[in-house]
Amino acid sequence: MFNLLPKEEKFFESFASQAGVLHEAAGILLEMLDKPGPDAPEKANNIKKLEHRSDNMTHDVIVRLNRTFITPLDREDIHALCSRLDDVLDLTDAAASRIVLYKIFERKAPAVELARVLQRATKELQEAVPNILNQRERILEHCQEIIRLEHEADHICRNGIAQLFEIERDPFQLIKWKEIYEVLEGAVDKAEDVANVLETIVLKSS
Amino acid sequence: MFNLLPKEEKFFESFASQAGVLHEAAGILLEMLDKPGPDAPEKANNIKKLEHRSDNMTHDVIVRLNRTFITPLDREDIHALCSRLDDVLDLTDAAASRIVLYKIFERKAPAVELARVLQRATKELQEAVPNILNQRERILEHCQEIIRLEHEADHICRNGIAQLFEIERDPFQLIKWKEIYEVLEGAVDKAEDVANVLETIVLKSS
Amino acid sequence: MFNLLPKEEKFFESFASQAGVLHEAAGILLEMLDKPGPDAPEKANNIKKLEHRSDNMTHDVIVRLNRTFITPLDREDIHALCSRLDDVLDLTDAAASRIVLYKIFERKAPAVELARVLQRATKELQEAVPNILNQRERILEHCQEIIRLEHEADHICRNGIAQLFEIERDPFQLIKWKEIYEVLEGAVDKAEDVANVLETIVLKSS
Repeated sequence: MFNLLPKEEKFFESFASQAGVLHEAAGILLEMLDKPGPDAPEKANNIKKLEHRSDNMTHDVIVRLNRTFITPLDREDIHALCSRLDDVLDLTDAAASRIVLYKIFERKAPAVELARVLQRATKELQEAVPNILNQRERILEHCQEIIRLEHEADHICRNGIAQLFEIERDPFQLIKWKEIYEVLEGAVDKAEDVANVLETIVLKSS
Repeated sequence: MFNLLPKEEKFFESFASQAGVLHEAAGILLEMLDKPGPDAPEKANNIKKLEHRSDNMTHDVIVRLNRTFITPLDREDIHALCSRLDDVLDLTDAAASRIVLYKIFERKAPAVELARVLQRATKELQEAVPNILNQRERILEHCQEIIRLEHEADHICRNGIAQLFEIERDPFQLIKWKEIYEVLEGAVDKAEDVANVLETIVLKSS
Repeated sequence: MFNLLPKEEKFFESFASQAGVLHEAAGILLEMLDKPGPDAPEKANNIKKLEHRSDNMTHDVIVRLNRTFITPLDREDIHALCSRLDDVLDLTDAAASRIVLYKIFERKAPAVELARVLQRATKELQEAVPNILNQRERILEHCQEIIRLEHEADHICRNGIAQLFEIERDPFQLIKWKEIYEVLEGAVDKAEDVANVLETIVLKSS
């Protein structure tokens, strides 16, 4: 036991920093959508750098897992957790790069709201992850909040798209914005996938 | 053993009712698409209520799992099963809300056919779930039928979209209907994901 | 031990042939996009046949698993592996059928590049799979390469779509091509999902 726990704790530290990277990226994305401007490519580039950092963190965890003795079940979950955290950042990056590639200079309220929900969901993840080993009830509360946020994102996305169909006369603009809303909502979906993995880990260890 | 089984059976009962809720929701969706009319918002609202009921069922199972002693492996699968069942209802609700938000008043055959396939897939789930503990061969048969239905849905969806490109002159209408077909097909996809979880459970226990 | 290994090896052989079928299908898809022509329906049909072969392989594995004694953990992974391999072929088939249904007669560089990346990813899978039991480090290298290819596909897809928005004046054409790029990218995504399962298997057995 003495041998196992400290090693596991290092993995959890690594998750906490990965969740911190996510939260930082979500904050930059929110700025990009709230105050669109000529600095979009630079900001998207900063998100891309955070994505590479998260990729490296994931890869390090896998290499360390392959060399560390802990139980097989834990390995699986640790792998799932860092892969799913990475997915959130992939989608955050996907949204940022679309803002640049689609030359988005306009501010649209549903996109800002969706980015805000994403930021809050990543905050919940950041707070949930360090508690894996000890505070199971609190983790489940964070997971419930993330699931609630995902429903909120879904609602904003659907209504935002309905509004696009009401007011947008240019089909190309509609397609671009519809996709941006959907990618943002997809990022929140991925945060919910992380919550599902956390729930599974808690349930296994209970 | 005497201690474990009755508790597990309660979980399976709970899945059977959740599958029943799914099947009911799929039936309402089929009506919405087969006989479009001014009662769409009310029907979508009924589906939304069923979705909340399913959400609560999922949450209850997680809370109970966290307090019940059964083997770790079972917990994981039970969690996966109710999450995946919930996903089917999420997509059913997504289709219903789009019918309302996109102001769909027209009947299109591929949408009706897709809703019918979804209804049949949820029927298969409803019949498969109560047999988890005893009739493994029959579960695998239900799973095979669901996989077949998913292929059928895929075929209807692809051809329906090709037809839209042939006949639809308004890009906005094409985008709306294409998405409705895709969400309906996605709901059947999610039913196939449930079938995959059921197969995994059967294989583990064999 | 003597009893277990030979049976497991048969499963791995079966995966290797399934990966071979994938690679063959990806090659046909690449031809369809690189040299579009009146033989598209015939080639799509050949991919469909390969998909049925892969489906049957998956079903056989499930039936055999249900009758073979090996450890529960292995069963799960074997099931996951053949399901995920099958998903790659599903998306390959989805791309091929869209080329036919959308009457695509034009050659577009991003589609060709995406199909080439898919072909390379399936080659990596084909080389990785037979090494499951003995060469763990090499499998992880193949997985890393597939993850790199997925990033490449993502990049090609995003830029290809941005280019469509720049040059395409017909919204229907834009929608068709955007979807073809996305389905091709989705196929590479599914190859990454296989890599994730392989990583999990390696990590469990280490």
